[in-house]
Order: sequence, then C-alpha cells, then structure tokens
Amino acid sequence: MAEMPSRPGEFELIARYFAPLAEAAPGAAGLLDDVATWRPTPGCETVLTVDAMVEGVHFLATDPPALVGRKLLRVSLSDLAAKGAVPRTYLLALSLPDSIDESWIAGFADGLSRDQAEYGIALSGGDTTATPGATTLSLTAIGEAPEGTVIRRAGAAPGDDIYVTGTVGDAALGLKAIAEFGADDALARWPDLVDRLRLPRPRVGLGPALRGVARASADISDGLVADLGHICLASGVGAALEADAVPLSEAAVRLLAERPDWRDAVLGGGDDYEILFAAAPGMAGRLAGLSREFDTAITRIGAVAAGPGVTVRDAAGALLKVAHRGWRHF
Amino acid sequence: MAEMPSRPGEFELIARYFAPLAEAAPGAAGLLDDVATWRPTPGCETVLTVDAMVEGVHFLATDPPALVGRKLLRVSLSDLAAKGAVPRTYLLALSLPDSIDESWIAGFADGLSRDQAEYGIALSGGDTTATPGATTLSLTAIGEAPEGTVIRRAGAAPGDDIYVTGTVGDAALGLKAIAEFGADDALARWPDLVDRLRLPRPRVGLGPALRGVARASADISDGLVADLGHICLASGVGAALEADAVPLSEAAVRLLAERPDWRDAVLGGGDDYEILFAAAPGMAGRLAGLSREFDTAITRIGAVAAGPGVTVRDAAGALLKVAHRGWRHF
Repeated sequence: MAEMPSRPGEFELIARYFAPLAEAAPGAAGLLDDVATWRPTPGCETVLTVDAMVEGVHFLATDPPALVGRKLLRVSLSDLAAKGAVPRTYLLALSLPDSIDESWIAGFADGLSRDQAEYGIALSGGDTTATPGATTLSLTAIGEAPEGTVIRRAGAAPGDDIYVTGTVGDAALGLKAIAEFGADDALARWPDLVDRLRLPRPRVGLGPALRGVARASADISDGLVADLGHICLASGVGAALEADAVPLSEAAVRLLAERPDWRDAVLGGGDDYEILFAAAPGMAGRLAGLSREFDTAITRIGAVAAGPGVTVRDAAGALLKVAHRGWRHF
Repeated sequence: MAEMPSRPGEFELIARYFAPLAEAAPGAAGLLDDVATWRPTPGCETVLTVDAMVEGVHFLATDPPALVGRKLLRVSLSDLAAKGAVPRTYLLALSLPDSIDESWIAGFADGLSRDQAEYGIALSGGDTTATPGATTLSLTAIGEAPEGTVIRRAGAAPGDDIYVTGTVGDAALGLKAIAEFGADDALARWPDLVDRLRLPRPRVGLGPALRGVARASADISDGLVADLGHICLASGVGAALEADAVPLSEAAVRLLAERPDWRDAVLGGGDDYEILFAAAPGMAGRLAGLSREFDTAITRIGAVAAGPGVTVRDAAGALLKVAHRGWRHF
C-alpha cells in the first residue's frame, strides 16, 4: 500500500480530465501528440500572453480548485481583452506535488470546463510534471486581432482622456476585509467584494470593441496607479488622475464609509481586471454607446499630460500620495 | 541589510536580461506590454508546444544555468522539429525562489541568447513570479508548417518502415555513468555521452525536410520503445523493432562493451531528442538523400505491424523485454 499513488498516472489523468477540455480544439489531437496545431485567421495577428500562478503566492492550497483554474484562465483572458484581442485557445503547464490528489485535479478541470463554455474556447495542449515544491500552474493564452489593430500600452498622447471600465478597488478591498475579519465574516458582509477577488470578470466582449477607439490600454492587475504608470512609461507621457472620479461599487462605498483609511486600496490595490485606457477627446460619444451596448460602466477618470509620472488629485485639487503594491510578484 | 534583495526587482531584471532576448521580435514590444503579437505566415498552420522543467526533477540547482536555459529551449525545439515545423518564437514563465540570484539569471539568459543565435528565433514574452518552492521554468514554443503538412503521431500504416535519426541511448548511458561513477569521472571517460545528456541537439533542419516523407513521427524523449508505443497507439497499429539495428555512437559501443547489463538504457532510456518516424517502403531512396544533405544518420530499425503493441527482437529473432521509464514526469 505504501507505494500506491494518491492519484492515477499522467496519461490516465490527461485522458480523464484534460482530453475532454480539448475535444473542441481540432488541432489538439486529443492531447495525444507532441504538439498542438492551430489555424490562424487570415489577416489577423496572433496575440500571446503567459501567466503563472504559484501556491502560497497567488493562491492557497485550501482555495477551491475550480476557482484556481478559472482565475488562471481569466487573468490571461483579461490581458487579451485589454489589447482588443479575441481569445482562441490556450495551453497549460502544470507542476504538481504529491499532495495534489485526483479530486483537486478534477475540480481544477471542472473550473476550466465551465469557463471554456463561458468564453467559447478550448484547451489545445499542455505539459504535466512532478515538483518537490509548490503547485505551479502556467497558462499560455492565444488570441487574435486584425493586423495593426492591437491596442498597445504605447500610444497615449497629451490631451487624451483616461477611462476605466466597471468599478475599481473591489478585489483589493475584499482582500483587506478577509485579512482583517477572516474569510467567513468578510464573505458574509461583503460577498460582492470577496467574489471580485476570487473570480475576475475579464472584459472579453468589450475589449475588442475598443479597437480603433482606445489609443493605449492595459488591464488593471498591479493597481490603477501602477498600471496607469505603465501606460505612461510606454507612451512617453504623464497622467493626471482625478481620485474622486474613480468609479466604486456600492459595496466598496459601504466598506469605505466604515474604513475610510482603506481608501488607498482602491487606487493602489490591484486584481481589478478592468480595462484602463486612453482615448482622444472626440471619442466620448462612441464610448457612451459602447457602455450601453455592453452594459458596462466606462468612466472618465483623468487626462494624459505631457510631463512624466502620474499625479493624483482629489475633487478639491489637493495632491494625494498613493502607496501601491508595484512589482509584488517577484 | 536584512531586507536587501539578493537580486534586482522584476522590471530591472527583465530590462537587463530578457528584453535583449526580445530585440529581434518586433511584436514583443521590448517586453513592456501585457501581450506579444506575432504575424503568422499566410498558408501556414501554427504549431504549439509547452514544456516545464523543475529543479530537483529535470535539473539540479548546481547545473550550469546556461545549460538549463538551452535544454529548456531545445526540448521544445525538438518537439517542433519532429512534427516538421520551423521554430518561430517562444514565451517563458519563470517561478523563482529567493535562492536564485542575479548571476543565475544572467547565466540562464546567456544560454538562451546563444541558442537564439543558433536557431534564429527570439523571445516574444513571459511572466516572472516568486515561488516558495522549487525553481520552475516553462516554455511555450511556437512554430509553423504549411497547412496540412504537420507530421502527427497518428498515420503509421502496417508495412511502413520505422526509422530513427542520429544515435540512440547516449543520454541515458551518460546518466547511468554519472550515477555509477560520479559526474567528474563520467565526464572524463565518456564526455560525448554526458554532453548528449546535458545539451540535446534537436533536429531542427532535418525535421521540416521530413514533411511529405514521414507518415507519423515523435521525438524520443521518454525512450525509444515508449515513444514508438505512442506512435503505435495514436496510429492504431503495432511495431516490430530490431534491437540490433538501433544505431549506437562509438562512445555508447565502448561503454556497453564494459557494461553489457546497461543495454536496456538504449531502448528504454530517453532524452535522445532524435526523430523517430514511420515511412512507406518506397521512401528509402529519398531518406538516403536527406541523410547526406543533413549529414545525419537515418537508420531503419524495424517495421510497422498490424497487431497492437511493440515487440523487440534481437538479430537471432529472440524476443526481448525492455524495461522503460514510462510516465516518469508525474
């Protein structure tokens, strides 16, 4: 009994849990080949992004594995969406310690299966290995956009308006609430905030509609101010952010009424997976139309400036200093 | 001092070591964007493969980091070559513990830089994260082949000849020699075998020339018999392997004269990164020409059979049983 593995062998796990995820990908060959193939759409560029999630850094061993799988996929879908790309397929590399049993893998695959249905994509291939260390999951997502239409970080020009989709700060406030009150209490009192932390909502529909509208963009993963800084750096510009214009959810407003000292988490937190972008002033009307079409708030929160760096002011014009997480993953 | 990191921050490391690897990839945007873009060649399929390497499983903390980087890249290039694809670009996901210092990263990047020059590709993007566990490196390689020409594992037919490129067993014998005699002695006495273990030679030139010649193929990573089994399973056929026809290097012949009990390592070992393929009998002449053109041995080692499974016989026709490593990575 001592040599009995806690889960089936690699080939059986792939056949049981991952091959079904690849059924809709004709070039995946049922995950029974050394490679996957994929036919690009003529006239489109291929858009590539890779993200890794590590147990103890990005998720906990006790997190529901379905949510871990969905978050892994959605973080990459958010990158594609912010660039105006439509997701097409993805690859996985999983390094799993002995402590990962079959039920964890079943849950992880079930989460991916649900999101594949939601976003209309399928798994194309992957690699599984053992590890003596932490569970390490990496995902390469592949999307497409017509040639020349990908929205880069570079491209913002002085005088452009700065916009953000949805609401900002929910995930970071959810994280603070869990740290302060424990997961059960936080979930009971602020379910919407905890949910935003656990399950990003990538703007997969809206993103491609921003092609030709947004001049520069990024998704908010490091934090609103940090990611705006990335756009500014790549574009060679600065930005003036109006803190009081940043859109908050009802739950965030309630929590901040109780804990006004947590306000920094809104601008400095992260894991929002909203799209932050710069657009020429003449685009306001088109953006109002897209907001209605996709039933998603699109809010002007500042303007691109000539000078370098991001300045943040409140409604009275006073300069604010925002602590942010920057470079937290390394 | 206690909080002083042993290496610079993520952005600085990327700028210093990885952005130079992406200079020749126009869609990499200097690694300063959320995604990379890539323009597929019209009329080609995209060919995708991902491989992960974990410290303590696939390499040791004491291995030269340049060799770790080169092996990571070459393992994926071997997958592409065996399928007839030309390599185009790649993505990295690196999960690095605190013990990895700047000199390790510099060495790793230097190894990649040398192989980029050798194989004519460039880095397109990546992700770096912290890990509390083992160093975990995953690489997604992207190649191309004209539509419909990718050589699959499926496609072998009874009566086909089975061929292999180069020589088989060198890496596995090098590994056994290191385990038995220690790395220094093994390197001194069998430098060619140890070198084959440390640095695969993917058949990047020859692979695409097998399009339209090979009917089914795989690269040998799990072991000759195991990978032939994969081709048979995918093709719905069996195979009769002639053990004495399997091509050996001079060094392997010398070592086996001393240690005939290690013969199983040739057929069952792995890490050969040669191309194993099935071709119709009429292809012998074309294969002889390709062998000359690419200065690479291409040796017939058996035939595809109707029945299932792989049988192995010696020159006298006696049935051999081969222990192989199968499923070792999980």
